[in-house]
Amino acid sequence: MDKPVAVARPGNVPRVMPDPADRRLTEAVAGIDQAGARTEIRVPVERALTLYLNAQEIVTMMTINDYPEYLALGYLLNQNMLRADDVVTEVVYDDDLQVVVVYTEHGTNFEEKLKKKTLTSGCAQGTAFGDLMEAIEGAVLPQAELRTSWLYQMTQAINTAPSLYLEAGAIHGCVLCEKGEPVCYMEDVGRHNAVDKIAGWAYRHNVNVADKIMYTTGRLTSEMVIKTVRMGIPILVSRSGFTAWGVELARQVGLTLIGRARGKRFIALSGQERIVFDQNLDYVEEESMRSKRKGGRDDD
Amino acid sequence: MDKPVAVARPGNVPRVMPDPADRRLTEAVAGIDQAGARTEIRVPVERALTLYLNAQEIVTMMTINDYPEYLALGYLLNQNMLRADDVVTEVVYDDDLQVVVVYTEHGTNFEEKLKKKTLTSGCAQGTAFGDLMEAIEGAVLPQAELRTSWLYQMTQAINTAPSLYLEAGAIHGCVLCEKGEPVCYMEDVGRHNAVDKIAGWAYRHNVNVADKIMYTTGRLTSEMVIKTVRMGIPILVSRSGFTAWGVELARQVGLTLIGRARGKRFIALSGQERIVFDQNLDYVEEESMRSKRKGGRDDD
Repeated sequence: MDKPVAVARPGNVPRVMPDPADRRLTEAVAGIDQAGARTEIRVPVERALTLYLNAQEIVTMMTINDYPEYLALGYLLNQNMLRADDVVTEVVYDDDLQVVVVYTEHGTNFEEKLKKKTLTSGCAQGTAFGDLMEAIEGAVLPQAELRTSWLYQMTQAINTAPSLYLEAGAIHGCVLCEKGEPVCYMEDVGRHNAVDKIAGWAYRHNVNVADKIMYTTGRLTSEMVIKTVRMGIPILVSRSGFTAWGVELARQVGLTLIGRARGKRFIALSGQERIVFDQNLDYVEEESMRSKRKGGRDDD
Repeated sequence: MDKPVAVARPGNVPRVMPDPADRRLTEAVAGIDQAGARTEIRVPVERALTLYLNAQEIVTMMTINDYPEYLALGYLLNQNMLRADDVVTEVVYDDDLQVVVVYTEHGTNFEEKLKKKTLTSGCAQGTAFGDLMEAIEGAVLPQAELRTSWLYQMTQAINTAPSLYLEAGAIHGCVLCEKGEPVCYMEDVGRHNAVDKIAGWAYRHNVNVADKIMYTTGRLTSEMVIKTVRMGIPILVSRSGFTAWGVELARQVGLTLIGRARGKRFIALSGQERIVFDQNLDYVEEESMRSKRKGGRDDD
């Protein structure tokens, strides 16, 4: 499958932005409106993609399937099923079977664990969840800086960039930013696919994420915090709200956690020391009803 | 755990409405705002609850945990792990261990399947997904009516009712309605927990759902459609958007699927024949910026 958008950047890392014109990612459907009149809208596609790690079937994901290879790698990395010392030899995607296989040089530690555990635990997800918590304990995040001027610059860039969300709605966005600039903007119907695709992209292109900022349209739940920490990203920003456990985990590892970031407003509940208040708020606009991406109810 | 709200109704079925005053469900946390000033907000709790079916560990769910018994039953029913002919003898919840166990008279068909499949598939989720699709094939939904006057009455009741969403944000809502009246309004941080809790509630109290309407704040994905069909509910309404596969499945089984229901607007993409346009639209208000539950970005 071709990559929808891959613009060459310094160091040959392709910048990723949404491609709402890609007709494989949305579909036109007809229906009626509140007056009973015929209407047509575009909606995002949703496809089942089955992931294998070597010979082991791992999970079937619902995805728009624009970047199956990034999604496969990112899922395994964020679930701690792939570790730093595992060597990935090949990622094979079969468009007909809707299957993606990640091959490693040797069998992975995860497959060994799974073999021992399936008979008692019944489900790989339970095992993986324990491993996730393990991964976050003792994690040390890098020093970094978040200038509020970057924050407003990046949220404005994200809200106004052409996207599948603006084209068809019903989709999540996750954006890796460098200072105020989006460098990898992924969207997906699946809750955590967008962030997993960013993880896969960063891994594949050896991108240093220690100085990056993660933005999500979704809520700041424990899972979102764990995935950001697993990736080694020190700052997580959302236009949506917080959950108590998300806040607790962020504080435990010193992640900078910013939520309800809309217009000029935001709230930081953890890692405030990384924030530099350099923006004059008189020059930042509130979100209005005319804003394309409106405020209100949480997104996730 | 006590039920937060259980009001006696005709036929002794307890009506369920959110209880934002329940201090176990939200937590106060302190942080700073965009001006660097100290601020305090409430956020929903998120707890890990592990579900067993007899001796089989099934899954660990993230939930606000207000109704562990309903959640346990509803999860198993909606995943097709419990069938109509399985007799539930007891549901035991342990508050210290955060474990809930559903006991059936005999071992279930699901456990048998799992025993055979774990060694090859590795994960119960994959198995369950296949079963879900199986459950929707050949499903026949009841005849029913959705008057647009009910639609506007119920969405207004839901948007203005005191809720955890209005108290703390970052939470999903699912509401079972009878004509224009909410009869079971569940909220949860976990994506599908709210709808599963409704399924458990309806099962426990033998509620006939053939004449009911399901409302969700979340998107109309394939999973949401499948769960509604599994429950035998003929009408599904959301303030959020659609995915292509959600629409396709709804059309396959003739589910009435209504999305983007905000203020006076909505779009129906399937099962339009159940809709009766009895509401004069001149008397319906648009959602305004002052509306407590605002429009804009999708919720899920």
